[in-house]
Amino acid sequence: MATTSTTAPTCKTLLAATVAKPFVEEIKNGVQALDRTPVLVGFLANSDPAARMYADWTAKTAESAGFIYELREVDKEELEEAIIAANEDDAVDGIMVYFPVFGGGQDQYLQQVLSKEKDVEGLSHLYIQNMYHNVRFLDEAETQKSILPCTPLATVKILEFLGVYNSLIPYGNRLYGKTITVINRSEIVGRPLAALLANDGATVYSVDITGTQKFTRGQALKHKRHLVADVEISLQDAVGQSDVVITGVPSAAYKFPVEYLKDGAVCVNFSSEKNFPPTVKEHASLYVPSIGKVTIAMLLRNLLRLIDNKKQRDLLK
Amino acid sequence: MATTSTTAPTCKTLLAATVAKPFVEEIKNGVQALDRTPVLVGFLANSDPAARMYADWTAKTAESAGFIYELREVDKEELEEAIIAANEDDAVDGIMVYFPVFGGGQDQYLQQVLSKEKDVEGLSHLYIQNMYHNVRFLDEAETQKSILPCTPLATVKILEFLGVYNSLIPYGNRLYGKTITVINRSEIVGRPLAALLANDGATVYSVDITGTQKFTRGQALKHKRHLVADVEISLQDAVGQSDVVITGVPSAAYKFPVEYLKDGAVCVNFSSEKNFPPTVKEHASLYVPSIGKVTIAMLLRNLLRLIDNKKQRDLLK
Repeated sequence: MATTSTTAPTCKTLLAATVAKPFVEEIKNGVQALDRTPVLVGFLANSDPAARMYADWTAKTAESAGFIYELREVDKEELEEAIIAANEDDAVDGIMVYFPVFGGGQDQYLQQVLSKEKDVEGLSHLYIQNMYHNVRFLDEAETQKSILPCTPLATVKILEFLGVYNSLIPYGNRLYGKTITVINRSEIVGRPLAALLANDGATVYSVDITGTQKFTRGQALKHKRHLVADVEISLQDAVGQSDVVITGVPSAAYKFPVEYLKDGAVCVNFSSEKNFPPTVKEHASLYVPSIGKVTIAMLLRNLLRLIDNKKQRDLLK
Repeated sequence: MATTSTTAPTCKTLLAATVAKPFVEEIKNGVQALDRTPVLVGFLANSDPAARMYADWTAKTAESAGFIYELREVDKEELEEAIIAANEDDAVDGIMVYFPVFGGGQDQYLQQVLSKEKDVEGLSHLYIQNMYHNVRFLDEAETQKSILPCTPLATVKILEFLGVYNSLIPYGNRLYGKTITVINRSEIVGRPLAALLANDGATVYSVDITGTQKFTRGQALKHKRHLVADVEISLQDAVGQSDVVITGVPSAAYKFPVEYLKDGAVCVNFSSEKNFPPTVKEHASLYVPSIGKVTIAMLLRNLLRLIDNKKQRDLLK
């Protein structure tokens, strides 16, 4: 346990750009192999500066990888019609929305308005349900891949980069033996992330203000998927057992209590706010302060998959 | 304005059972005309006494109308798999879930797990999106009807019974000139209800803790549907203009400030809690304290529509 306030020299901070780089190269090659330039449309209907920054990053990365990126700023009351117009426009390959717009259930409704054939963020119900049930393809012939929600997917890619996934263990079981705490259980990131990690073999404590759930891998009625149970465990005890702690609290005021960390834990923050104080480095072995650039790489990767899925569907016509 | 605390004799209280009765008769005839007995499955995965009472009422009404009703009590962690099993079971015609289960976004996810072909509550995304866009059929030939969410639909049927819908005005415009305040903007009831009322010509103030929106009928980009705008108006001013006030606040502590009511207003409460105090009768002309029995009639009516839609699809095979 660290007893001084100086930063332990053993913690390595890893930037998302480093993890994103090989993916962006791979995506660039993917775009070059296409016979046309794919078009991604982003809808901005809020005045959140974090959303605008994320939109700017998306534009920069998309354009550097060879896509056309078009930001459409619309009034929130016009957003639904604008999404429907983009759904129906053959010139648009992928669509994303910078949430929150209205917040809550109305945003969840809007996510479902977006055509699943153009949903680069992977938030359509079919994709989310497939992910929860570990279903990886859209068709029986396994030619069209289901799309994974991009922020949870980015987090998984970061954990792979960090060696938390052990590549000596067979695929699908590479988190076996690992305990992970995820602080956030939203439908967009926290809950799907807990499920993905449990599907890969981890024991996951999923924490939010309503309580803690434990996700583990198991065999349910018909589908191979994780099991979930409410558990009575303090944050301190859950974190004290965890090899990895992932935060996603959308509040500038929130600071994770780093004194709960196991020495040498891996810490990843996916919130646009800094959930870990600088003292995280006194306890962690690896620290990833933000993941946005990997998320953008994943949504561009998803866009290539959507284009490929369309090609596969066209072959069947 | 009433100045004494005695109940004004001019307010008539109308019970939901009275409104439900002709619908239940009509449904009974519909069931008798079928070649088999339809099966409705209700899933109860919470310990909410209001949900259990509602389930008991559903059972009673469904059975008296000639349906087979089966209540399946499941652990909330087993609910998703149980819904999927019922989706796939040809012996089940209709499915409903007594929400809330987890609350929030996870319940909205579960609603979408339910097959839209068996969704008697009309909460599938396609049905909700059709309702918002005033699309009444599922197919171009107009043989399969889109399903309306049952609580908003029940409220509309009550307003028709009360004469708030003026049947001398052409269909689709029968609330023209009416102002209505709806206190609740949930995705399940308040927001769809505001849209339905605006689609029929009313000016609707939709109130929740985040603010007030005004729904009016209008022509949007491509679809014939209502318009929505944030408005700065006090509850007192909105209610003071309203011919009808509809409440749906899920809290025993909440009591609507009846002194804001226009004399002779029509008051309808769809919450399982009593949102109006007894003094509502000093101001209102018509008062409907609860709507549950009409909601049940509407979900049985929806079930007959789902069976008819299936018949239409089978004809096309």
